Amino acid sequence: MDMNKYELTFFCVAVLLRRQGVSNVGALQMSNSPELRHRGGGDADAVPIQDPKQVVSSDDEEMPTEEKLEGLSKILPQSTDRLGSVLDSWLESLPDRWRNWIVRGIFTIFMIGFFSFVVNRGAFWLMVLVLVIQLKCFNEIIGIGLVVYRGFDLPWFRTLSWYFLFTSNYFFFGEGLIDYWSIVLRKDEFLGFMITYHRLISFTLYIGGFVWFVLSLRKGFYMRQFSLFAWTHVSLLLIVTQSFMIVQNILQGLIWFLVPVSMIICCDIMSYVFGFFFGKTPLIKLSPKKTWEGFIGGAFSTVVFGLLLSYALVRNPFFICPIENYNEAGQNCTFPLAFVDVDYTVPRPFSAFYKALKREPVVHLPPFILHSVIMALFASIIGPFGGFFASGFKRAFKIKDFGDIIPGHGGLMDRFDCQLLMGTFMNIYIQTFIRVPNWNRLVQQILWLPVDDQLNIYTHLKDQLERSGVIAAV
Amino acid sequence: MDMNKYELTFFCVAVLLRRQGVSNVGALQMSNSPELRHRGGGDADAVPIQDPKQVVSSDDEEMPTEEKLEGLSKILPQSTDRLGSVLDSWLESLPDRWRNWIVRGIFTIFMIGFFSFVVNRGAFWLMVLVLVIQLKCFNEIIGIGLVVYRGFDLPWFRTLSWYFLFTSNYFFFGEGLIDYWSIVLRKDEFLGFMITYHRLISFTLYIGGFVWFVLSLRKGFYMRQFSLFAWTHVSLLLIVTQSFMIVQNILQGLIWFLVPVSMIICCDIMSYVFGFFFGKTPLIKLSPKKTWEGFIGGAFSTVVFGLLLSYALVRNPFFICPIENYNEAGQNCTFPLAFVDVDYTVPRPFSAFYKALKREPVVHLPPFILHSVIMALFASIIGPFGGFFASGFKRAFKIKDFGDIIPGHGGLMDRFDCQLLMGTFMNIYIQTFIRVPNWNRLVQQILWLPVDDQLNIYTHLKDQLERSGVIAAV
Repeated sequence: MDMNKYELTFFCVAVLLRRQGVSNVGALQMSNSPELRHRGGGDADAVPIQDPKQVVSSDDEEMPTEEKLEGLSKILPQSTDRLGSVLDSWLESLPDRWRNWIVRGIFTIFMIGFFSFVVNRGAFWLMVLVLVIQLKCFNEIIGIGLVVYRGFDLPWFRTLSWYFLFTSNYFFFGEGLIDYWSIVLRKDEFLGFMITYHRLISFTLYIGGFVWFVLSLRKGFYMRQFSLFAWTHVSLLLIVTQSFMIVQNILQGLIWFLVPVSMIICCDIMSYVFGFFFGKTPLIKLSPKKTWEGFIGGAFSTVVFGLLLSYALVRNPFFICPIENYNEAGQNCTFPLAFVDVDYTVPRPFSAFYKALKREPVVHLPPFILHSVIMALFASIIGPFGGFFASGFKRAFKIKDFGDIIPGHGGLMDRFDCQLLMGTFMNIYIQTFIRVPNWNRLVQQILWLPVDDQLNIYTHLKDQLERSGVIAAV
Repeated sequence: MDMNKYELTFFCVAVLLRRQGVSNVGALQMSNSPELRHRGGGDADAVPIQDPKQVVSSDDEEMPTEEKLEGLSKILPQSTDRLGSVLDSWLESLPDRWRNWIVRGIFTIFMIGFFSFVVNRGAFWLMVLVLVIQLKCFNEIIGIGLVVYRGFDLPWFRTLSWYFLFTSNYFFFGEGLIDYWSIVLRKDEFLGFMITYHRLISFTLYIGGFVWFVLSLRKGFYMRQFSLFAWTHVSLLLIVTQSFMIVQNILQGLIWFLVPVSMIICCDIMSYVFGFFFGKTPLIKLSPKKTWEGFIGGAFSTVVFGLLLSYALVRNPFFICPIENYNEAGQNCTFPLAFVDVDYTVPRPFSAFYKALKREPVVHLPPFILHSVIMALFASIIGPFGGFFASGFKRAFKIKDFGDIIPGHGGLMDRFDCQLLMGTFMNIYIQTFIRVPNWNRLVQQILWLPVDDQLNIYTHLKDQLERSGVIAAV
């Protein structure tokens, strides 16, 4: 790897994290602190509880009320259609609706371009991108939690959530690495230790955070501290597990990442396009902009797009080789079964067409093409529910967008909401239908056992193979 | 298994679930409904968002405010010291402090008795008990959530949380069963299907709940619906994963369940006793009743108790045999390594004592005795943080107890708060230090592969064993 790649990535990371909203936080802190000061003082010492009726009545805090939530969209960075002085003056001459179209369009193309560029760099940089997106999404969600529960003065909260993010990433990515490279990694003494004790280390880290949280509990903040504890954990559940699954999919071969992600993007865009031009019948009250026309048009386009994309990629070793077998020089591997042609008999109504042409009603296809139809259906039917969920969430906390990082679109979470369930689906789909147990890995596992057990396995296996006539009995 | 066992268990379940608090829920619904009726009406149709400033302003809901939380302890069932008319009249003649002691004491003894009885029945009934406790704890936590967020009129909420509870149990216990009994279960065609597609089925079930939640979102309830969604998921995270780990520990041998659980109980009781008699220095502001004297006394007692209990159980096959090898008739198994005596050299300062007696400074102990010291330290140092966490939670939502099922103690969650982290710790401890890979299971895994792969493994293994001289090369 040359320096240019590194420089480029760091540049991109810098761009992605450009607007951390530090100034906004500062502003909020000012507006909140007098109130908190007023509350925090006075009765610092708790008294033992004796009567159930006077339980914790000295506690003086309030959950967020409606008026406070109303102010959220003014405090949190929200999306704009502004692009800088030169472009803005030109855009201002256009009608509102078109301006949004153009800004959105430009940034859609920019994002797709950037994404294709990273995919071209290969699996490693893609995984880095997934991680960066994970960080930014977490940052956006935690930022909203902080504003909703006026958490800027809560002791340790922001540090604690990042600590939990680190801990859960350490756990999940460690598990993934161990699963894939344990044989290589064990050779190193230090890494061997980290692998053997991985779960214990992760748990100890988590316990550390848990104890830290309990010790950071302060009278007058309890309710908000617990709410934000839950908020952090649900965010971790949604974001860290998700990105972990996506990284695992990448390791199975780039195509398992690229096709589903592109399908969601296609579904997003085409629903928008169909909805924009033909949208009439409202789909769901939650997202009043969504229409049945957009939903159906999106689903149809996604299936067609998925078939075309799969067809284009399905013979390219760069996309289909699992990373463990990936040979950077030759870019070659034994094609996994999902990419080897199979004869499928065309079923009844369609076979008539073949008979008319006097041809055998059989098609030769790699199974992946059929898988891609199922993926497209999931992406276009269930995927949007991730989007509805995010819409509902935004309405619940009275914000328009998760952030303002992508002009015309909003925050990263606004763009990745429909990807929410897709990564997990693909992961389970691969586990269930695609991934075959790797006999090589089983051999390695056996060789880690004590010699007695190795011998036991050998004898048993020999017996079985002899009995079934696979090897000749001596 | 004879009918008596079943009858008895169902009786116990009935006793445990005796007070479901249905009447309380009824009362709340009445007190809440006029308010909700007032809110629910009016603007049913959402309007498309065009201006960020008017985002969702038509939404008319409020997060819980302090005054509403104040009322919680009046609505939720809270613990009492009442035991029924006869005993009460006798108890009333005693001073308050002693009355609590006696009621608490009676029910501590009752619980320990019941627990010992179930342990004696063996692993199956213990797992049933763990499941029943899980259900009741979940019920208590969801009940609090319902009251905090005035959720009684929320569409589908209660059904949805039980659905998610079912789904996550299905997933986790399925994984556990597959891990332990997949070879046996696969023989049955239907169960074989359930095993092969277990994760896909679980995920489909979860997706069903997710879509159901999104479809149940109603204007004017958004904020509370999302809060309760998070509440449910954190409860699942805390309770279901925990009980799953505990069941796995039971399968590893009853002792891995019994010793840690007893340690927590011992630590709870002894901290209370030490605190009651010697408590002076407050330990943590969160729980003003807890003292350093209780904490240290509890820790010391727990280590001593743990050593004694381990010593008593460590040679008994009923407690130490893993369930997979457990032979109900003979109650015998090859003792796992943790229970086979090892010679330990006594370290420096203590070895002098042996030298004075002119004896070899060596002790013969099964490693479990040493493990028990580590468990006791975890139970008495980290365990109480589960309790502090629960205390903080109760203060955050202004309740005294999680329920009223155990007179003198409160809800089940009040009694199991310190067990919160212990099950996970034991599970990871067993995985890291105790459980050895089962060569028998590896053989079964190999025999599930295609014959070609079996042959590959066989050849590789043969090569390796010949090269290392374990078997003679032909």
